[in-house]
Amino acid sequence: MQKNIKLNMSRRIRRTPFTNKVEECGVSDFTVVNHMLLPKGFNNSIEEDYWHLSEHVQIWDVSCQRQVQITGPDSQKLVQLMTPRSLENMETGKCFYIPIIDENAGMINDPVLLKLDDDMFWISIADSDILLWAKGLALGSNFDVKIIEPDVYPLAVQGPKSEALMVEIFGQDIKKIKFFNFKIFDFQGTKQIIARSGYSKEDGFEIYFKGHEDYFDSIQLGEQLWNAIWETGKNFNILPGCPNLIDRIEAGLMSYGNDFTKENNPLECNLDKYCNPKETHNFIGKDALRKIQSEGIKQKMRGIIFDGKPCAPTGKPLPIFSQNNDKIGQIASGIYSPRIKKNIGLSMILKDHWETGQNVIVQNIDGSKHEGIITTLPFPK
Amino acid sequence: MQKNIKLNMSRRIRRTPFTNKVEECGVSDFTVVNHMLLPKGFNNSIEEDYWHLSEHVQIWDVSCQRQVQITGPDSQKLVQLMTPRSLENMETGKCFYIPIIDENAGMINDPVLLKLDDDMFWISIADSDILLWAKGLALGSNFDVKIIEPDVYPLAVQGPKSEALMVEIFGQDIKKIKFFNFKIFDFQGTKQIIARSGYSKEDGFEIYFKGHEDYFDSIQLGEQLWNAIWETGKNFNILPGCPNLIDRIEAGLMSYGNDFTKENNPLECNLDKYCNPKETHNFIGKDALRKIQSEGIKQKMRGIIFDGKPCAPTGKPLPIFSQNNDKIGQIASGIYSPRIKKNIGLSMILKDHWETGQNVIVQNIDGSKHEGIITTLPFPK
Repeated sequence: MQKNIKLNMSRRIRRTPFTNKVEECGVSDFTVVNHMLLPKGFNNSIEEDYWHLSEHVQIWDVSCQRQVQITGPDSQKLVQLMTPRSLENMETGKCFYIPIIDENAGMINDPVLLKLDDDMFWISIADSDILLWAKGLALGSNFDVKIIEPDVYPLAVQGPKSEALMVEIFGQDIKKIKFFNFKIFDFQGTKQIIARSGYSKEDGFEIYFKGHEDYFDSIQLGEQLWNAIWETGKNFNILPGCPNLIDRIEAGLMSYGNDFTKENNPLECNLDKYCNPKETHNFIGKDALRKIQSEGIKQKMRGIIFDGKPCAPTGKPLPIFSQNNDKIGQIASGIYSPRIKKNIGLSMILKDHWETGQNVIVQNIDGSKHEGIITTLPFPK
Repeated sequence: MQKNIKLNMSRRIRRTPFTNKVEECGVSDFTVVNHMLLPKGFNNSIEEDYWHLSEHVQIWDVSCQRQVQITGPDSQKLVQLMTPRSLENMETGKCFYIPIIDENAGMINDPVLLKLDDDMFWISIADSDILLWAKGLALGSNFDVKIIEPDVYPLAVQGPKSEALMVEIFGQDIKKIKFFNFKIFDFQGTKQIIARSGYSKEDGFEIYFKGHEDYFDSIQLGEQLWNAIWETGKNFNILPGCPNLIDRIEAGLMSYGNDFTKENNPLECNLDKYCNPKETHNFIGKDALRKIQSEGIKQKMRGIIFDGKPCAPTGKPLPIFSQNNDKIGQIASGIYSPRIKKNIGLSMILKDHWETGQNVIVQNIDGSKHEGIITTLPFPK
């Protein structure tokens, strides 16, 4: 088991407008994403949290999903340069999941893009400084854009009861938000963007909470928002939560830096459908991606179900072997699924072994080796 | 006091070739820098660690000081574009501390630059993805460079006995390395870059440990290097350590993200001497920096000595007030100095209050207010 290692607190690991509330709720674990605290555990086990999320509703401080705001005449041009996914038909009010790749077609982020207007975008990022990437590209290319990290702190409401809860606070119009769309709602005289989205396989919403100019006023408003959800949520059996590892792996939701890195291309990550650009669509990494497409990929992201004692993440990947004992992949974070009643994980698997139903061998944390089987993503229901 | 919050481990928070050794040594705290583990505490208090560092020698895993390697014909041109400090007279074998600023002259990193050759540089970074910044700039500008994060993991040997220890392992030539210079040494048939530098006010070295192609072989070689230093170090009373907050604040060594951020310009950080470019030297942020230089700055980094019960960092800044109770700054991390026998901290202080000897009021963690005084940096001996 993992020893209890303390996270050393400093201003560099930024608090959020909700950190006080998260602490009041008895947070036990944090991680760090985009130089900001992300709660990773409260008083329940991951398993208890998993069942609760699948039945009720939770409030998550996901402020670490920082926004890169791009405005100005060249904003669409810049965003389009950053991803192989076409934005041609993207309308205002839409959220697009986009791979961002470098000149080698290596993944450098997999954010959600929000179109606020024809010349205004938010990129809601995973754990890498896309602010610097976007600014570097724009400066080098002399694009007429302004790029900032606005004071926006996403707060997620996730679980099957989230719609009913949100309706009580924001009204019936909440129901009109379709998956991966957003609308603007009023909260105490402020305009707040609310999207139907979230890092779970349940229904849910993300409030892109924007505070006041003054950070201390923002904390106050943020805590009012938290309290409103919390108080209303009591009728829905609300609990504080965070992205749940069992839930996200079952859903096949990848985590940048864990399941894939800049060493991986989007085709390896099963993002083929965002990699068929028109001739006229230029983007960073286009030549490299074409080359990979013509030569074919060598490994691909797959689900693995495996035996052995229930495993928990340690930060040390679990190696995967073929029947001939050749290494064919590694699971960044294996976890026991109480629904599937086996261990599960995500892994890049070499070509000759990636077909669904193939047998593999997974080495557990304790060094013991166990039968595993390649499965579809999301995991079978 | 800070509650014990666990750091949730995952592959995204990268381990280093030395993490196993650090764990064997009983690490109790980690932080995260550049998506990598940085040890922040072992079995001693910060105070005990401070006295030990000032008298003996310590081994620090500072692998999180990631390198951005820039090679190719345009490498000097690119690096020069990234900083207001002139590299005109920089020779191979030198380390330069350089501010890196954005188009608004905001600090986005304060790394140490190593010149390995006329067309090869390492930027040894603080906590932001300068890899993405450099690559974005280079791609936008069509520069002929290659930019990667090489498999280099700095290991620091710090303290007054570090030279004697290093001589026993690497030979008398260690003595010839001057401060902020590096030379190449052999270790078990591999070439290793060793610089006289480190994030403390004591003498010390940083070994830019480069492993083998295979990461597992690198861990093995890394552990051999750690063991060699550890075994030899026993004669010098060696302990495992990490950047010490008391030592670095006394030395006036700033921490990016803590004491200053992208909201600050280099003049506010007392880096004026690196901000006097020639007419012919172009760099990102030049116009913005000129404007700030002509208008003058509104705040400046200062040392503060203040009364009250011994304070320890919590991640929550301590506000600083004038005698009229106006807010004039904040201390990101205040700490008790057993040498000065008062609390100390670093802070941006507004213009009318930044003169040495001026009196201010600091609000401690518990809310109590105390007398403080502005002091020079480094702190007086």
